[in-house]
Amino acid sequence: MTPVTSPLTTDLYELNMVQAYLDRGENKEAVFEFFVRKLPPRRGFLLAAGLEDALDFLDTMKYSAEEIDWLKHTGRFRDNLLDYLSSFRFTGDVHAIPEGTVCFTPEPLIRVAAPLPMAQLVESRLINIMHYQTLIASKAARMVLAASGKALSDFGLRTAHGAEAGLFSARASYIAGFAGAANVLAGVRYGIPVVGTMAHSYVQTHDNEMQAFEDFARARPEGVILLIDTYDTEAAARKVVALAPKLKADGIAIRGVRIDSGDLIAMSRKVRAIFDEGGLKDAIILVSGGVNEDLLQTMTKEKAPIDGCGIGVSLDVSTDAPALDCAYKLQEYAGKPRRKRSEGKATWPGRKQVWRAYDIEGRMRGDILSVESDKRSGETLIQQVMRAGNRVAPAPTLAQIRERAARELGRLPEPLKRLEAFDYPVTIADALKAAAAEADRITVKG
Amino acid sequence: MTPVTSPLTTDLYELNMVQAYLDRGENKEAVFEFFVRKLPPRRGFLLAAGLEDALDFLDTMKYSAEEIDWLKHTGRFRDNLLDYLSSFRFTGDVHAIPEGTVCFTPEPLIRVAAPLPMAQLVESRLINIMHYQTLIASKAARMVLAASGKALSDFGLRTAHGAEAGLFSARASYIAGFAGAANVLAGVRYGIPVVGTMAHSYVQTHDNEMQAFEDFARARPEGVILLIDTYDTEAAARKVVALAPKLKADGIAIRGVRIDSGDLIAMSRKVRAIFDEGGLKDAIILVSGGVNEDLLQTMTKEKAPIDGCGIGVSLDVSTDAPALDCAYKLQEYAGKPRRKRSEGKATWPGRKQVWRAYDIEGRMRGDILSVESDKRSGETLIQQVMRAGNRVAPAPTLAQIRERAARELGRLPEPLKRLEAFDYPVTIADALKAAAAEADRITVKG
Repeated sequence: MTPVTSPLTTDLYELNMVQAYLDRGENKEAVFEFFVRKLPPRRGFLLAAGLEDALDFLDTMKYSAEEIDWLKHTGRFRDNLLDYLSSFRFTGDVHAIPEGTVCFTPEPLIRVAAPLPMAQLVESRLINIMHYQTLIASKAARMVLAASGKALSDFGLRTAHGAEAGLFSARASYIAGFAGAANVLAGVRYGIPVVGTMAHSYVQTHDNEMQAFEDFARARPEGVILLIDTYDTEAAARKVVALAPKLKADGIAIRGVRIDSGDLIAMSRKVRAIFDEGGLKDAIILVSGGVNEDLLQTMTKEKAPIDGCGIGVSLDVSTDAPALDCAYKLQEYAGKPRRKRSEGKATWPGRKQVWRAYDIEGRMRGDILSVESDKRSGETLIQQVMRAGNRVAPAPTLAQIRERAARELGRLPEPLKRLEAFDYPVTIADALKAAAAEADRITVKG
Repeated sequence: MTPVTSPLTTDLYELNMVQAYLDRGENKEAVFEFFVRKLPPRRGFLLAAGLEDALDFLDTMKYSAEEIDWLKHTGRFRDNLLDYLSSFRFTGDVHAIPEGTVCFTPEPLIRVAAPLPMAQLVESRLINIMHYQTLIASKAARMVLAASGKALSDFGLRTAHGAEAGLFSARASYIAGFAGAANVLAGVRYGIPVVGTMAHSYVQTHDNEMQAFEDFARARPEGVILLIDTYDTEAAARKVVALAPKLKADGIAIRGVRIDSGDLIAMSRKVRAIFDEGGLKDAIILVSGGVNEDLLQTMTKEKAPIDGCGIGVSLDVSTDAPALDCAYKLQEYAGKPRRKRSEGKATWPGRKQVWRAYDIEGRMRGDILSVESDKRSGETLIQQVMRAGNRVAPAPTLAQIRERAARELGRLPEPLKRLEAFDYPVTIADALKAAAAEADRITVKG
């Protein structure tokens, strides 16, 4: 079966256009940039993610004989296209904002400069990778900021949109500061810490809940976490207290419990009280089910005795804003700036750079977006990551990316740290405006 | 690299529980059902989808030596689990509501009956497949109902959540009645008609828009669709009119245009008028960009001259409701009914069946949900699809599934066809309530 990571994970129009380009020998250098047009409501910043997977895609993109054959049999394409794809290797230049960097609209997260057919051909999958990981890292960052140090885990594989979403979500949330994920493949593929307890079905297979707890603790004696909301949470918490001495006698400690339904904050207090009275002061309380950044803020404000949270659907599908308004647009062709002026979707042309200024306490103060050739002061965010299809430096480790993200979130302006509405200033430099005027001058006569 | 369809696309707790089950020899027959708890706001029905991919997953699920090795090296699992996984093959029974069937909450879409460790082990990925495809088929069905015959295409790969989401969305929307998808891999994998035109970048690479149109038409002369909103849509429509005779002289017909920005309805009228006056009465008008079922209803009501729509993000991420509240829950173990009573998440136990009644005009009138052994009248929705791990009948073709969906949507109650709020009656039979009482009786003493 054709793998889901086939280069035919693309929109047909890319192939249509490449056919047309090849027919006319349109092979000059094209510069495309991927950027987010507009933040969703309530969102104040983005956390860049997905770059390493995007570069892996570019690095390994090739067409199998079966794929070429399938295209041939559609009758839509000519031999020049089929030959081009058969020997395709990505040999372009790529610049990008490093993963784990805070960024804003409309700053480009990634730029591809390559012969036109090549730069066009990678569009659909490049957006597919960058959009989703940046969406999830940005959502997860909000949760991490709201959690004030509670350990968060990605529990969302089941309602993630397909297998790859579950995997990418684990990666993007780990970058943003999550402690781990339940998805085992995230451990295999990315080395992310894998976490997990037990499900209601485990309790349900026993006639007796206390017996279920004991069996599970004996079978999985390392870091026992018991799920206590299958029938009656408070009653179950008392069973845990009753069971603890018996297990302790056999050298098994109950590390804690998980609550997955009801009013999580109110119930955590009741369970904490039962445990504290019952001699389980060290047992931790984890919660799951409906946790999002708003509930995390409330937990923090009300000092709920919650030590960690498993977060599912609100993370993996970014429920409140399940997509970003983003695009991969032609910014320059054959050395000349290009842009579209479509109603509500006009773009800034040219190869761009972002310069960032910080205040005296090291907090982000404002960005300038301009053409790369402009001379501005401040830290530059966009770096070259690929030259002629080869990486210019070894890939950062996931740990390094995660450290960068932690540092970046620490430098957010205070209102953004508190998830408050705040318009971070991104100034469009005069040189960029001049490039737009130049692009218009070239194409208006058309 | 471990493929994303690895059986390790699962939550760690499944493996934890299976380890505990194996240790205690808990191997009796378990019955799990997957169902949706509650419909999202504004949704009145579900369109079942994902079953064939779910059965393929069960049919082909096996662990590679590398995967077993990875698990072994975590140090979390004992040899009995590793041996069990090494020789794992799914040999359970599966019942399901056929794909393309309209269904409601809390009717089970799929039921797995298998030895406990086996039925547990398949949970995460089974939900992952069924949830997303049913989510998208249900969303797409709304669009098809609202479109009143306009051809709809899935353009959403780029902002779908990963590659598999783009693929599954193409499949689920095709089942619901979409005409095709832009994702080429959907053609390869599922035989779905693949559609596509051109992007703004094609126009932008030319200094002159009219030249871009002509080049594209000559390169792709079969069914030429030109994208006309890169700079000024009305001006571009006039260029199309001017270009048509020249192309016609060379035997090339312009099939139509696509508009991707602005007020699509207002612009479609302006372009229609320009074409009708300019002798292009047969040229079709396609639109894309922000199309959802609400806009489709408005297009229909206002009789906008729009022949087809490309739909992206609102389909692939189901923007208004990007997830369904769903679960895969233990309903019976070792012959005894089981359920959970968690606050707000209580379930109905046992192996269930749905009986559906129709009115005299063939419209769905109401469902009864009961235990399978109950005797009710009406059409039964749940059928056996796998016995001892083998399919009981050849898989339906995608065309057959799509026909079923069309028939089903035609039998919806009128308010649901019009996407109006309507509480379709699903009656919980007394026999099911009795099973719940019995389940409670067994476990309350615990």
